[in-house]
Amino acid sequence: MAQARVYVTLKKGILDPQGEAVKNALHTLGYGNIDEVRVGKYVVLTLQDSSDSEALKNTVEEICKKVLTNPVIEDFSFEIVEG
Amino acid sequence: MAQARVYVTLKKGILDPQGEAVKNALHTLGYGNIDEVRVGKYVVLTLQDSSDSEALKNTVEEICKKVLTNPVIEDFSFEIVEG
Repeated sequence: MAQARVYVTLKKGILDPQGEAVKNALHTLGYGNIDEVRVGKYVVLTLQDSSDSEALKNTVEEICKKVLTNPVIEDFSFEIVEG
Repeated sequence: MAQARVYVTLKKGILDPQGEAVKNALHTLGYGNIDEVRVGKYVVLTLQDSSDSEALKNTVEEICKKVLTNPVIEDFSFEIVEG
C-alpha cells in the first residue's frame, strides 16, 4: 500500500472567510500574536502498491487536478509515502 | 514571523462520509486503485516571532485543542517553521 498526502490551500490573495473567522475567534480568546490563519484541506489517499512510482505520481497529480482542487482558486502539493 | 502547520484528521474508526464520497467519485472516474480516502483540515497559522520556541509550541498546542479540533473525534499534529 502506498499513501499520498495531499495539501490543498487557497491561492495567495484569495479571501479566506473561514480563516478570518478562526483568527477573530483566536483574538477574542486572547491569542493576540496570531497574524493570519489560512484553512485548507488535508487529504490522505491509500493506494494499492504500484511498482512504477512515476505512474503513481502521475495518477495522484491527475486526481488532485481533476477531483480534489478547484484550480481557479486553489493550489496543491503532495507527497507519496510507500508501505 | 513563525508559521505553524496544523494537520487535523479524523480518529481511526470514525466514519468519514466526505472521504467515502470522494472515493466513490474516484472509482466512477476509473481510479480503481484507491483503497481509502480520508479528508481532514490543513490550517496554517502565522504567528509573531517569539524568542521562546517552547512557549510558541505550547500556544499552538493549546489553540489546536481548544479551537481547531474536536478532541472527541479528531486528532492533530503540527510543525512550527521559523522565519
